[in-house]
Amino acid sequence: METTRSTSIILDTDPGCDDAVAIMLAAKQACLNLKALTVVAGNDILPKTARNALAVCSYLGLDQLTIAAGMVRPLVREQVVIKGIHGENDLANLEFGEPTIKLSNKHAVNLIIDILLSAEEEITFVALGPLTNLAMAIRLEPRIIPKIKRIVLIGGSYGFGNITPAAEFNIYADPEAAHIVFTCGRPIVMIGLSITERVLVTKEVMEKIGSINNRAALLFSKLMTFYNRANHRFFCEEVSPLYDPAAIVYLINPSIFTTKPMYVEIELKSAQSYGRTYCDYYGTLNKSANAEVVTDLDSDGFWSIIYETIKLYG
Amino acid sequence: METTRSTSIILDTDPGCDDAVAIMLAAKQACLNLKALTVVAGNDILPKTARNALAVCSYLGLDQLTIAAGMVRPLVREQVVIKGIHGENDLANLEFGEPTIKLSNKHAVNLIIDILLSAEEEITFVALGPLTNLAMAIRLEPRIIPKIKRIVLIGGSYGFGNITPAAEFNIYADPEAAHIVFTCGRPIVMIGLSITERVLVTKEVMEKIGSINNRAALLFSKLMTFYNRANHRFFCEEVSPLYDPAAIVYLINPSIFTTKPMYVEIELKSAQSYGRTYCDYYGTLNKSANAEVVTDLDSDGFWSIIYETIKLYG
Amino acid sequence: METTRSTSIILDTDPGCDDAVAIMLAAKQACLNLKALTVVAGNDILPKTARNALAVCSYLGLDQLTIAAGMVRPLVREQVVIKGIHGENDLANLEFGEPTIKLSNKHAVNLIIDILLSAEEEITFVALGPLTNLAMAIRLEPRIIPKIKRIVLIGGSYGFGNITPAAEFNIYADPEAAHIVFTCGRPIVMIGLSITERVLVTKEVMEKIGSINNRAALLFSKLMTFYNRANHRFFCEEVSPLYDPAAIVYLINPSIFTTKPMYVEIELKSAQSYGRTYCDYYGTLNKSANAEVVTDLDSDGFWSIIYETIKLYG
Amino acid sequence: METTRSTSIILDTDPGCDDAVAIMLAAKQACLNLKALTVVAGNDILPKTARNALAVCSYLGLDQLTIAAGMVRPLVREQVVIKGIHGENDLANLEFGEPTIKLSNKHAVNLIIDILLSAEEEITFVALGPLTNLAMAIRLEPRIIPKIKRIVLIGGSYGFGNITPAAEFNIYADPEAAHIVFTCGRPIVMIGLSITERVLVTKEVMEKIGSINNRAALLFSKLMTFYNRANHRFFCEEVSPLYDPAAIVYLINPSIFTTKPMYVEIELKSAQSYGRTYCDYYGTLNKSANAEVVTDLDSDGFWSIIYETIKLYG
Repeated sequence: METTRSTSIILDTDPGCDDAVAIMLAAKQACLNLKALTVVAGNDILPKTARNALAVCSYLGLDQLTIAAGMVRPLVREQVVIKGIHGENDLANLEFGEPTIKLSNKHAVNLIIDILLSAEEEITFVALGPLTNLAMAIRLEPRIIPKIKRIVLIGGSYGFGNITPAAEFNIYADPEAAHIVFTCGRPIVMIGLSITERVLVTKEVMEKIGSINNRAALLFSKLMTFYNRANHRFFCEEVSPLYDPAAIVYLINPSIFTTKPMYVEIELKSAQSYGRTYCDYYGTLNKSANAEVVTDLDSDGFWSIIYETIKLYG
Repeated sequence: METTRSTSIILDTDPGCDDAVAIMLAAKQACLNLKALTVVAGNDILPKTARNALAVCSYLGLDQLTIAAGMVRPLVREQVVIKGIHGENDLANLEFGEPTIKLSNKHAVNLIIDILLSAEEEITFVALGPLTNLAMAIRLEPRIIPKIKRIVLIGGSYGFGNITPAAEFNIYADPEAAHIVFTCGRPIVMIGLSITERVLVTKEVMEKIGSINNRAALLFSKLMTFYNRANHRFFCEEVSPLYDPAAIVYLINPSIFTTKPMYVEIELKSAQSYGRTYCDYYGTLNKSANAEVVTDLDSDGFWSIIYETIKLYG
Repeated sequence: METTRSTSIILDTDPGCDDAVAIMLAAKQACLNLKALTVVAGNDILPKTARNALAVCSYLGLDQLTIAAGMVRPLVREQVVIKGIHGENDLANLEFGEPTIKLSNKHAVNLIIDILLSAEEEITFVALGPLTNLAMAIRLEPRIIPKIKRIVLIGGSYGFGNITPAAEFNIYADPEAAHIVFTCGRPIVMIGLSITERVLVTKEVMEKIGSINNRAALLFSKLMTFYNRANHRFFCEEVSPLYDPAAIVYLINPSIFTTKPMYVEIELKSAQSYGRTYCDYYGTLNKSANAEVVTDLDSDGFWSIIYETIKLYG
Repeated sequence: METTRSTSIILDTDPGCDDAVAIMLAAKQACLNLKALTVVAGNDILPKTARNALAVCSYLGLDQLTIAAGMVRPLVREQVVIKGIHGENDLANLEFGEPTIKLSNKHAVNLIIDILLSAEEEITFVALGPLTNLAMAIRLEPRIIPKIKRIVLIGGSYGFGNITPAAEFNIYADPEAAHIVFTCGRPIVMIGLSITERVLVTKEVMEKIGSINNRAALLFSKLMTFYNRANHRFFCEEVSPLYDPAAIVYLINPSIFTTKPMYVEIELKSAQSYGRTYCDYYGTLNKSANAEVVTDLDSDGFWSIIYETIKLYG
C-alpha cells in the first residue's frame, strides 16, 4: 500500500519564493507524508516568514496542514537576513489576502519534539533555511535524535560562498545550529550551493510550467518571473538558480542526484570563515563520513519531476 | 513588611560541595524567596548533579522546594566536567540515603520560562554553574528577558584562568551560553575567580562554623574537610577557595563587595582563549557596561554572613 | 630584439618532482630571462630542496644559473612537509651524483632584495612553493615592492583543499607569508589546485614526451613514471596531476588560461581554516581584485608547450 | 674585573618618553655593556622613533653608541601606533635640535645578526617595544639563537589589557613577532602591565630626581612632567605608570623583582584576543616554563636605582 511506502517528513522553511515552490511540491506528492510545516527566521524575520507560510499554504488549499512558528533568531550569532531578491514581502510582492490557516499555538521546537517522540515511524527532517529549529529541539530533548530518519538540507558550499567568500547563506545565518545538526549522528544529505546553482529557471522551464493551467503553476510562474528579474537586476544573470525545491525533488527521486559520502564540519571559530561547510573530499582528516554531499544532478530529470508534481494540482 | 522586601530568586546549580553550601544559605535567609532550584550539567554530568541537588535538599528538609533537571550538555561545545576535587559523588563521598524529594517532571528550561512568564515580580536568576539552562530559556522564549531582575553568577576571570590559562570553568564549560546571557540586556553581577579565590576556608573558619550544633553546620564541616584535603592533594594548598556561596552572600549583603561596572564579553572564536571573560577595565572598546564585576570583598564580613545564616538552621 | 621582449624572472622553488620539470622549462625558453633560482623549505626541509635544486640544474647543464638557499622554515607556524609522494629524496629516488653547481653564499632573501633593487627592469617573481622567501624580502626591504612586475604562484584553492579540507599545501605551509604576498599591492596570478589538478600526466603525455631523445625528456620520463606510481599508491588514481610547471607555461603563453580578477585573502585566524585562499567570486566583500585567479585552461595547449620546450634541449 | 662581570646588551627601543629614561639608565651603568641601540616602529612610526633615538642619545652625549633603524612595520598585522600620550613628537614636545649622532647604515635586523654571530659572549636582548626586530633576525638567521643569553622585555599582561581588553600594546602591535620570540627557546623575563602599572611617577619621585642637577635629571623631569599631565588628561589619573625603565632596573638589580616561571603563549588566532599573553599560572597546560614572569616588585628599591643611576651623569 502507498502509505507504508511513503516518507514521513517535517518540512522546516523560511519562505521565500523558492521555499514556496518546495512547499508546493512537498504537499502534493503521494510518496511524501507531510506531518507539519515549521517556520524559522532566515530569508527574513520570523513574523514575515510565518505569515508567508500561512499565505502560501492557504492559497494552495492545504487546510489540514499543521504550521508552527519557531525560533525568531539564531542560537548564538547576530541575526542576518537577505534583502531584496525575494521582494519586499519575500514572495515576489504578490498579494495573498488574509490566510485561511492559523498558526499552531505550539512553538515549532516543541512541535518537532512532540511529533518525533510520539511517531511510530522514523521521520525525515527537511530543512530549507537556517537549522535553528532542529538544533534547538535536539539540545532541548536529545531523545528525539534516534527518531530522525535522516536530514535533507539545502545549504553549504564546497566551492565559493554566496554571502561571504566562505559561506552559503543558510549555514552562515546560524552556524552553531548547523554544527549541532552535523554532529547529531543521524544521516544527512547536503544539497549545497555548488549544485543548486546549476538548477536554472530558464525560459524553457518557464514556458513548460507556464503551460500548466492550475493554481500551483500560476504561483510558480509569478514567483519565478519576479525572481528571475530580481536576479537579473542584482547579479546581471539572465536566469536564476533555484535552491530549495531540490530537497523535495531529492526525496521524490534521489536517483537523479550524484552524491559522495564525506565528513562535513562547520567553521565556528573565525569571522572570515564563519559558517563554511568543510567537505573532506580527499579524506585528509580520516574521519567517518557524516553526510552524503550532492556533487551532481540531472537537470532535465529535475525539472521533469517539478513539472509532473505541479500538474498534480489538477 | 518582610515579604515585600524579599528577593525572589531561581537558583541554578550543579552540586558540587560548594553548591551545597550555597543552597544551604539560599534556602534559609528570610530576605530570599527561593522559587525553584534548577539543575544543570557542570561540575559533573546531569544525573549526578540532579541526584545531589535532591540529596542535599532532602537532608536539609527543604521538602517544599521545586527542583527540576535541565540541560544535559552545553549548547555547542563538547562537554567537560571536573574530576576529583569534589569526590567521586561530587559531595565529598558522603552517604545521603534515598532522597525524600522528587524531581519536577518539567524540564528546567520550561520551568524557568513558566516561573518568569507567570511571576508578578521580577526574578533574580542566580547561576552557580554553566549558564546553559538560562541561555536556552532566553532563546526559546525571549519574552522572559524583561522579567529577569538581574543575573548574579559565579564565573569568569579577569586574571588567570583555572581550567585553561584563559578561562574559568563555569564559563569554559559553556561559552556560547555565557555569551547569550551576557548579551541579553539584563543587569549582571559577575563574581569571578579573582575574587572567589580570596574566600579561603581557613582553620579558623572551620572551627567557628564547626562550633554550631545543627544539621547544616555538620554538612558544611564534612564537605569542607574533604574539600580542603582534596585541594591540598591536587594543588598543594593548605586551604581551599570557596566559590559558589559568594553569589548568595552577595544577595544577602552586597555592601561587603566592591564592584565596578564594565563591559564584559565572552571569547567564542579561539580554541586557546575559548571562554575567556574580557572585562574592559580601561574602556578601550567604548561600550556600555553590561555587568557589575566584583573586584574586592570583605572576607570577614563574608564569613560572618555564612556563620549567621547557618545558625538559622537551629 | 628578443631580449627586450623577454620576461625577467626569479624562480622560487622547493624541488620536488614537479618543480624539476618547471625548472627545466624556465631555463630553456628564450622568452624568459631566468635571473636566479631561489630555494625554500616546502615539499621537504631546506637541505633537501637546496640539494635537489643543485642536482637538477647540474644535470641540465645550467652552470651559469645563480642558485641561493633561503628560509629554513615558515614565518610563524610550525613547519609541515610532504611525505612520500616525491620519493625519499623528493626526486623520484633518482641518483644525481655530486652537483657541479654550488650554492650562492648569499641568503636567498638577500639575493631577491639585491636583484630587485639593482634591476633596471621590473622582475616577475614565480613561486612554486611556500611564499616565505618573498614575504621575508618584502618585509625586510619594502623598497623592492615596486620593482616586482607581478607574482605568478602555484597555490591555493577555491574548492576542496588537499592538505586539509580548507587548504592547499603551498599556502598552508606558510599562510602568513601568503598573506604578506597577497597584500603587497603588486599584481598576482594565482594558479590553484582546482586548475592544476586538471593537468594530468596521462599515458599519452608520457609517450609523446618519452619520444623526445634528450636529457630533459629522459628526466621528465623518470620523474613522472615514479610520480604516477606514487599517486596511484597513495590516492588510487591512475594518472597524477602536475602542479608547478603551470606557472612557467602561463608565462610562456597566458592565452591558454582563463582567469577572473578576484579579491583573494588568506585565512590566518582559524586552526580549521588555516591557509584557505578565499576568492571572492561573487564580490560579497566589495573589495578591489588583487589577483587574477585561473579558472580554466586548455589542456592540449598546455602539454603542447611543455613538449615544444623540452624539445629545445636538443 | 668589572668588564668580565658586566652584561652585554642590545637595547631595542621605540622612543617614547619612557624609552628615553630607559636609554638614560642603560647607557650609564657600569654593569651594562650597551653594544647597540636598535630602533623599531611601535609607539610611533619608524622615522619618528629613529629620530627620537638619535635626539635622546645626542642630548646625553652618547656619541660612541651604534644606533640602527629596523623594521618599519609589524610582520603580519596592520600597523598600530599610540596617539597623544607621549606628545606630538613622542618626546613630550621637547625641542632637541639637530642630532650629533647618525644612524648606522646597517638595517637593525642585520646589525643584530652581525653582533650576535660575532660576539664571543652571550648577549642579553632588551626589548622595550614590539618584538619585530628580534623576531625577524631569528627567522632570517636562526644561528643567532644560541648566542642570546636571555631576552628581557617590557610587554604583555596577565590581567587587564591596555589597548584592548585582552592585550598590552607592545605585544598587540606585533603578536606574531612576540610568538616567534616566546617560542625561540631562550630564557625570557616578561615584565608586564600588571607590574609596570605599579611603578608610579609620584610627586615625591619627581621632587627627588628633580633635585639632581645634571642633563639627565633635567630630561627626566621634563619628560615626566609632560607624561604625568598627559595621563591625567587621558585617563584622569594623578600619576603615571612608568613602563620601559623597568627592564633596565631589572638588569641592574633583579633582586627587587619577584618572578614566577610560567609557560607563556601568545594568542594569534582571534581578533578579540589578539596579542594576549597567556601565562599559565596554574600549570593547566602541563608545559615547561618559557619565561620568568614578574609578579611583584619593590617600588622603593626601584626608584632608588633610577635615582642613583641618573646621578651618575655628574
